[in-house]
This record gives sequence, structure tokens and C-alpha cells, in this order.
Amino acid sequence: MSYLSHLECSECGQTYHAHELHNLCVKCNAPLWVRYDLDRAQKELDRDRFAARPASLWRWQELLPIDDLARRIDLGEGGTPLLRIDRLAAQLSLRQVWLKDEGRNPTGSFKARGMAVAVTRATALGVKEFVVPTAGNAGGAAAAYAARAGLAIHVYLPQDAPPANIDECRAAGADVHLIDGLINDAGRLAAAAARERGWFDLATLKEPYRIEGKKTMGYEIAQDLNWELPDVIVYPAGGGTGLIGIWKAFEEMGTLGWIGSQRPRLVAVQPIGCQPVVSAFAANQPACELHQNAHTIAAGLRVPKPLGDRLMLRAIRASGGTAIAVSDDDIVKMTETARRGEGISMAYEGAATLVAASELRRQDWLKPDEKIVCLNTGAGWKNP
Amino acid sequence: MSYLSHLECSECGQTYHAHELHNLCVKCNAPLWVRYDLDRAQKELDRDRFAARPASLWRWQELLPIDDLARRIDLGEGGTPLLRIDRLAAQLSLRQVWLKDEGRNPTGSFKARGMAVAVTRATALGVKEFVVPTAGNAGGAAAAYAARAGLAIHVYLPQDAPPANIDECRAAGADVHLIDGLINDAGRLAAAAARERGWFDLATLKEPYRIEGKKTMGYEIAQDLNWELPDVIVYPAGGGTGLIGIWKAFEEMGTLGWIGSQRPRLVAVQPIGCQPVVSAFAANQPACELHQNAHTIAAGLRVPKPLGDRLMLRAIRASGGTAIAVSDDDIVKMTETARRGEGISMAYEGAATLVAASELRRQDWLKPDEKIVCLNTGAGWKNP
Repeated sequence: MSYLSHLECSECGQTYHAHELHNLCVKCNAPLWVRYDLDRAQKELDRDRFAARPASLWRWQELLPIDDLARRIDLGEGGTPLLRIDRLAAQLSLRQVWLKDEGRNPTGSFKARGMAVAVTRATALGVKEFVVPTAGNAGGAAAAYAARAGLAIHVYLPQDAPPANIDECRAAGADVHLIDGLINDAGRLAAAAARERGWFDLATLKEPYRIEGKKTMGYEIAQDLNWELPDVIVYPAGGGTGLIGIWKAFEEMGTLGWIGSQRPRLVAVQPIGCQPVVSAFAANQPACELHQNAHTIAAGLRVPKPLGDRLMLRAIRASGGTAIAVSDDDIVKMTETARRGEGISMAYEGAATLVAASELRRQDWLKPDEKIVCLNTGAGWKNP
Repeated sequence: MSYLSHLECSECGQTYHAHELHNLCVKCNAPLWVRYDLDRAQKELDRDRFAARPASLWRWQELLPIDDLARRIDLGEGGTPLLRIDRLAAQLSLRQVWLKDEGRNPTGSFKARGMAVAVTRATALGVKEFVVPTAGNAGGAAAAYAARAGLAIHVYLPQDAPPANIDECRAAGADVHLIDGLINDAGRLAAAAARERGWFDLATLKEPYRIEGKKTMGYEIAQDLNWELPDVIVYPAGGGTGLIGIWKAFEEMGTLGWIGSQRPRLVAVQPIGCQPVVSAFAANQPACELHQNAHTIAAGLRVPKPLGDRLMLRAIRASGGTAIAVSDDDIVKMTETARRGEGISMAYEGAATLVAASELRRQDWLKPDEKIVCLNTGAGWKNP
């Protein structure tokens, strides 16, 4: 059913079996791509076969790492709405803007997609206990999927993470560790615990499958726009798995012959208080430096040195995109504007994309008639 | 496109034009049904045509009161997941239980369905300003859809309504009136304001179209179970629009020839502190008496005298169903059990259905192998 083939290091190309547990490449410590037999899939898979299936991300089962769909760990993730926001767009001097409302996922954020697939895959490969470091939402999602799987999980998150995240981890029965530091510090502690205790580490990009869940956003955007990709996708970049995943989806769909050669320009948005990707992009560097004293109200973007920095920067550049920083004040105001103007509940992270769109229009980097998809990565009720 | 035909009084049968604004029957003050030309639809509509459409409630457009689908007021409502909960079911000594997770709607509750359709219809018929009395969630939903429509709304709700509801109304720009009383008191104030100011009253069953939004839950349950209805549907009864709507959906689908003659037994669940429907059912009365001093932690069920009491009681009896009261303590514990056991976030109202299922199994009213759908009408984050 699935065309799953193997794993492949994103730096050195080393391949690994997809039916064994792997984290990073053992040679160069880089993330692993999940690869499929797309040549065969291209001959056998028609893009029109997917629409009649239930609208969850499992609709894309042939292009997901599944052995037995019936044994998926499933809370009904994916299949989120793509909403035209004409009134708000007009305020930004734009005419064709959509919000992909990822706040409608289980646990109220797009993290559900990655965790659903990662926990499903890990469970299929025999994992019995998880650990995850998180800025907040990924922990809440991981805790919910571990509970759904009936397995234990240990969550490491900053002591000043949003209360909604700490609460949801505990409510789902996770063993919660509040740490004095940020997600990169949590990552070190979680990795050490994983080594010592034999827990499986679900950290961003440290296992290959969260990307596979996130890439389904790209498949959905293409399908919802009738296989004509937008001109621009605006993405709030923390760990960057979603941006990397969406780009991977476009590559796969290109190989499958489902879309033409046009690709959206990818825009990574970060808050002024934590903008390692924006800085590296501007300096034309291949990787990020650690952003010192990272701070922002958009907790999901408080990632001072993302592990996926190289993959993100490559995708942004390959797409002809850009990276831009926005202020916390503008982010907060935009959540209010979106709620009053369109009735849409936005995470701070999601609202950052609209602030960025406004600024890029002002700079004329965005043209008035371009088709723009902004990712609302979470629901407003999770905002501190 | 829509087979919309006319409106019809649920008591005296008086008909009304569907292209004029109406609230209750002017003769007998009873709710109005929306009727469709089902004879013609039966010849022309195949149940299999719907699956390939986007999974929102607008998928059922031919059976909704729409003139122009493109002008709908839409936040991506409906199409919620139907989740098997095998581990939790086993704890209740049951084997086939599904939760319909309505907390995944916009604004985190099933109220979105009714308001999406009611606001769409009212807007199409020229309404410019709304008023709504609410126990909480309906107000939050109405405020969001009014904002999406770019129109003003006035919300009357109890001063001790859940803070999440008061906050969401204000965030969406609604004019909020906190009152010293319950939803029936709010209803009187809202009705008076509607008369004086010419606002359109969106109160439960006081306009015909919220039921039409809610009935789509019935269509979805049928479709998701491959047109074989479950044996039992367990529903937390406040105003009862959902229960009435689901029953209407089954009647319509029967006429359309999409389902056979088997119907689920409908179970209405209420909290011990506010159980007018349970009392009327037990006393074999056709309507409810006002439940004095209504109190419960499940704010959405704090409806001491629902306007739809007769319609609810008729449907429950016609189905061979029952009505049962459960305790607030058990409700709260069940939200915790569901979160830890299955990772599912449940509103208190939704958790009440699982408490009821457990009790009805103990009484052997439910058999171990019966197929049971429980409605989780909202998300846990809205719980006080």
C-alpha cells in the first residue's frame, strides 16, 4: 500500500533501512529523509484518487510510512480548511490570500501532524516509551498521541513555556520536566535521557517521520487549489519541519507528475527577538548561528538554533523566497485584527505570517494579485 | 442547486416562504422546520456523490438552505472525525464505541455548525445585525460568524458563563451583555432587544436554520459508517438542536433512500442539577417543566426549559431511546480518563455521554456489542 522505500541522509546520502528505528545519520549527525519508490508510484497513483477519502492526513497513505493503516495512532489530524480572507487581505493591500487553519488539528496546532505519523511509525517499529524536548506545542501533541497509543512519554520544556502547553502535557498523563532554559537546552537533556533510559527521542528532525506528517500540508494545499500551487507560502519558522516538509511534498508531487514545474516562493517569518534563519539568510550563510537571549511572545518560534537550519535555508533559496523578522507588538495586534475582522482564531506564530505579508507588500516584494497561502500553525486559545 | 422548498410549523403545519425571514410560527409560537423537495431529490441525488467534496458541512449543499454557495459564511465547519475509542470502551464494558469529535469545529464546539448555516441564511435574506442569548458556546460561535460576515452582534449570556465563552465573544468584537440569570432569562432580554431594535434573533430554534447546520452531524455519521446507522446515539441535551437535527437528518436520508428503516435509539444525557428532559421523559410528559435552581459544571447543559422540549421528547420516544441524568463529579472524572486513556480533549458536556454509556451498560440497557456513537460536543480547553 505504501511506496515507502528507504531512509537517506540529507547531507551525505547514506541510506538506511526504513524498517529499523533510526534517529540522525550516524556518520554526519544530519537529519534523514524518508524516500519512496516514486517511479513506480508515478505509474500507478492518480492524483484524483485521493479526494473521495476521509479528509485526514491518512488520505495520503501511499506516500506515508505505513505498514498497516488500521494500526495508525489517529486523533483525526490533517484535512484542515484553507480559508479565503478577502476582508483582511484588502487591509494588507492584497487580493488573494488564504489561511491554512492548522489550529483545527487535535491539540490545536500543526504539531499534531508530525506526531501522529512519528508515533505511529515508532509504535509499529516497537517503541514502548518516548521522550521529547519542546518549545510547547510539540510536547502537547506528543503527549496526546502517546496517550492514544497507550504508551508513556517524558516531556522536557522551558519552565516559562505557555501554560496551555504545560497543562495539556500533564492532562494527557505525560511525565513533565520543566527546565531552566530553551528548547535547545531541553533537547540536550532529552537526548541524554534517551541514551540512558532507552526512550525513543521524538525531537524535531532527530527522527525521520515528523517531516512526513508535516509534508501533508503541502499535499493538501495543492489539492485544495486544484493542483495549481500558490505564488507564495508564508511560514512561521521555529524548528522549520513544516517548511521543509511542504517543500518535500512539492518535490514528490513534481516527480509524481501531479503538478507542473512552478514552485511557490517560500517565506520564513521569525520574531525580531529570535531570528537565526533571517540572519543567516541575509548573511548568505548555509547554516544558522545560535541567537543569543532569544525572546518572543510567539513561543513556538523561540528556537535559537534549529537543527533543520541547512534544509530550511536551502529550500527558501531554491524557491526564490526570503526570510523576514516581525515585532511581537505587531503579532499581537494582528491576532486581534484577524479575530474581529474575520472571526478567525490565530496563534501568535500564525499571525506573524500576516504581519510579514503586510510588510512584504509594502516593500513590493509581494504583488497585489499574487496568490498567497499563510500558515496559521495554531489556535488562539493556546496563546499566553 | 439546493432543494429548499418551504418552512413548516412543527406543531400546526402552517407553511411559510423560505425566502423571507421568519422566526417562530406566528400562530402557535412553535419552531419551524425547513423542508426540501425530497421527492425530486430522491430521483436526482446519489449518496455517493458527496464523498469527493471537501469535508465541511457544505458538502451537503443540496440539502441545506443555500442560494449561492460562494457567498456562504464559512470558517471550515463540520467534517469532524469519528474516532474509535477501544481502550476507553473496554473500561465501560463496551466493544464498539465512537466519539464524534465536535470540539474540532471552529470556536471549539458543535455550535459552529448551526451558526454557520443560520448566519449564512440570515445574511442572504438581508439581516445586518444579530442578537443571541446563550449559555456560552453558541455565543462564541455566533460572534465568530458575525465577524466573518462583517456584521454586528449582541450577545446575552449569564454572568457566570465559562470565561472562555465571554472572552471569545469579546475577542470577536461582539457587544457582550452579562446578565444575572440563565439562558432563558437571557432569551427574554434578547427577544425584547430584537423587537425594539430590529436585530435578528439567533436564539435556539427561534429561527429555522441552526437545526439545518446541526443535522449535518447525522449525515456525517451515516456516511462515515458507510450508511449503516449505529444502534445508539448518546447526546448531551441542553437546547437539543443537535438531537433534533440528527433525527431530522435520518428522516431525510430515509426519504432519499440512502439508508434503510433501522434507526438508532437516541439517548439524551443531562446533569443531575439540570434535568428537565430526563424528568419529563420519566413522567411520560410531552413537554418539560422549568428545572428550578439549575446548576452544573457542564454550562452548555444549563438549560432549565428548552424551547425544543417537545421535539426532543418526540424524537427520543420515536427512536425507542431514553433520557438519563449523570453527576458533575463523574463528568469531570471522565474528561480526565478520556484525556489520559485516549489523548482526547473533551468538553464536560461530551464527557457526560460516556458517563451515561457506562451507566446504561451497567443497567444492561446497552448490550456489550452494540454500536454506539457518543457526541463530544466541544473541546476540553473551553471547560471552566
